[in-house]
Amino acid sequence: MPFPDIAVPTLLLDEDICRRNIARMSAKARLNGVRFRPHMKTHQSRRVASLFREEGVTAVTVSSLRMARYFAGDGWDDITVAFPVNLREAGEINRLAAEVRLHLLVEAPAVVRQLDDVLDHPAGIFVKIDTGYGRTGVPHDDAGRVDDVVREIAHSSRLAFDGILTHGGDSYSARTPDEIRARFSTSRERMVETARPLRSSFPEMICSVGDTPGCSLAENFTGIDEIRPGNFVFYDAMQLQLGACTAADIAAAAACPIVALHPERGEAVFYGGAVHLSKDALRNRDGEQYYGLAALLTDDGWSEPLPDTHVTMLSQEHGVLRTTAEILSLLREGMLIAILPVHSCLTAECMRGYLTLDGHVADHMAGRPFSLSQA
Amino acid sequence: MPFPDIAVPTLLLDEDICRRNIARMSAKARLNGVRFRPHMKTHQSRRVASLFREEGVTAVTVSSLRMARYFAGDGWDDITVAFPVNLREAGEINRLAAEVRLHLLVEAPAVVRQLDDVLDHPAGIFVKIDTGYGRTGVPHDDAGRVDDVVREIAHSSRLAFDGILTHGGDSYSARTPDEIRARFSTSRERMVETARPLRSSFPEMICSVGDTPGCSLAENFTGIDEIRPGNFVFYDAMQLQLGACTAADIAAAAACPIVALHPERGEAVFYGGAVHLSKDALRNRDGEQYYGLAALLTDDGWSEPLPDTHVTMLSQEHGVLRTTAEILSLLREGMLIAILPVHSCLTAECMRGYLTLDGHVADHMAGRPFSLSQA
Repeated sequence: MPFPDIAVPTLLLDEDICRRNIARMSAKARLNGVRFRPHMKTHQSRRVASLFREEGVTAVTVSSLRMARYFAGDGWDDITVAFPVNLREAGEINRLAAEVRLHLLVEAPAVVRQLDDVLDHPAGIFVKIDTGYGRTGVPHDDAGRVDDVVREIAHSSRLAFDGILTHGGDSYSARTPDEIRARFSTSRERMVETARPLRSSFPEMICSVGDTPGCSLAENFTGIDEIRPGNFVFYDAMQLQLGACTAADIAAAAACPIVALHPERGEAVFYGGAVHLSKDALRNRDGEQYYGLAALLTDDGWSEPLPDTHVTMLSQEHGVLRTTAEILSLLREGMLIAILPVHSCLTAECMRGYLTLDGHVADHMAGRPFSLSQA
Repeated sequence: MPFPDIAVPTLLLDEDICRRNIARMSAKARLNGVRFRPHMKTHQSRRVASLFREEGVTAVTVSSLRMARYFAGDGWDDITVAFPVNLREAGEINRLAAEVRLHLLVEAPAVVRQLDDVLDHPAGIFVKIDTGYGRTGVPHDDAGRVDDVVREIAHSSRLAFDGILTHGGDSYSARTPDEIRARFSTSRERMVETARPLRSSFPEMICSVGDTPGCSLAENFTGIDEIRPGNFVFYDAMQLQLGACTAADIAAAAACPIVALHPERGEAVFYGGAVHLSKDALRNRDGEQYYGLAALLTDDGWSEPLPDTHVTMLSQEHGVLRTTAEILSLLREGMLIAILPVHSCLTAECMRGYLTLDGHVADHMAGRPFSLSQA
């Protein structure tokens, strides 16, 4: 019986797959002559970060000052906080800027002025550009506003203009790999276009792009200086459905105890709910919402995803798995099943720690491991 | 400016509203002659639990052994774990059963036998009944299986038959308060019917029901011995939309910093994402998915929910608020906005701690407070 010591939902990490995912993205960055500044928000783990270090990575991306602090404490000293600067955290920004090469994101001249007023230490500033995702950033076609922000940065003695940065999150709503490539290409062209008038005044400026689907599938990075994908380190059911990875690239799976069987409706109930997996959802081919795929645990990890098997319901601690009669006949109360998360970043945040396949506990910034604390 | 010390997303708790919610449900239980065994999974807080103690509550419900352990450590000694028993946790079940009056849920004879084999200490056993929700439990109309499980419990020397228990979660998909009352009524009748043939052999048996919408709105509890609502202690946007509470009953709201404004599309971006609020969602009248309502912070809490204002997008750390031009004109980068969560249980789990309106930190089992640790 695999993993006899696991009693409660536990996030398993296959570090070999992680290493392979990192090596592949790293090689792609080298091949295309772009800097690889991976986003750590997916794993939030110093142990996983060490696998990047083995690949020669020296600069990272995070999504909060708290995360910047966590990795600064682990010796990372070149950190981009890829989130619009939060003026209420001026104190922590100053403390971090005194210790590491800190890069922040702004998108409004008023925020640059206020930041300049409160900063005691130099910080690099990226202007956040919206190339079509529509979440946040200066619209790529609003050259006037880009100029206003850059001019405001240039006036400051403490702020240095790093360049422009985008997150092409619209790749997540694409339906095919070709569509992902097309959206990445549009986003890239808009970034290159936005950078063009600035390059003469700022020859060292960086043009930085980010999303995992785009960075996984795109082949043309012309005009780009830096990539910041994060999710690729683990991938997940969402990336599989997008076509950005194969099932063999998924590096994290939650081992969950089966607690009840309902053969009359083809369902099993497992211990593992929204507090373990997160409620991020996808839709299957029938349009039904689902919260995870499933696999059988093996002595050295987990199987391919089980066919016609989905987590169809998730409440606070319960998960419901709908599957075939044949698969259901293999399950018993007290067995473990592996759940491949829809969105590994959120599942890792919920689970707060990993068990590697060779039995080590890997840390997560969010605190002590959710389940491994009982081990 | 309210809450000048809050720098990052922080879950505010209005303890006066909590006390009122608790007092109201407690009075309703007394009036109807049913035991009030509140579910602690919503708050997972010893401080909030103390408000129940002030109301005379002595027995509680939890959803995991970890939560049972947390509250046992706070002096609670009569605890129902309202989750199908997880055979992999036999060790912890034994340790807890040695310390407190522990009640467990089963729904299959095979599980009863295995439990009986591993238990060293007496435990009370409820048979979990499915009265129509379809998540888990013995179907209410499968009297043969109920009998099989009860007979198996009766054969054991360590297991005592406590009674039958259901969670009428189908109330959450009701569309009107009348529909909630009707579903509660059906569920209640099915429980009474299931209990009838058992009462002669087990005159002390308990018939236990649970959901917050039903317990908030129902008026007829005939034949019921115990209620276990949990969410009512905080309520949230989901309960408001169901008609199970008013906006004035919502006791928890996340204070989140505004970080970017997009007046051209009526949106503001705030610091507060799926890792703070959870991705549980509702649909508004236009069928659009939303992840929270919003309110303005005041010196003593927060306002009524802002009209025509919804959290329309939630990524890992970003929230996007869509609102009217008038409200948007009041917002500035660096201000705080209050987000009323869709599902307060999950938001509390994400945030891992509360700031009470009089400035105290209230604990949450999930660990140190997410944001207050920086204060």
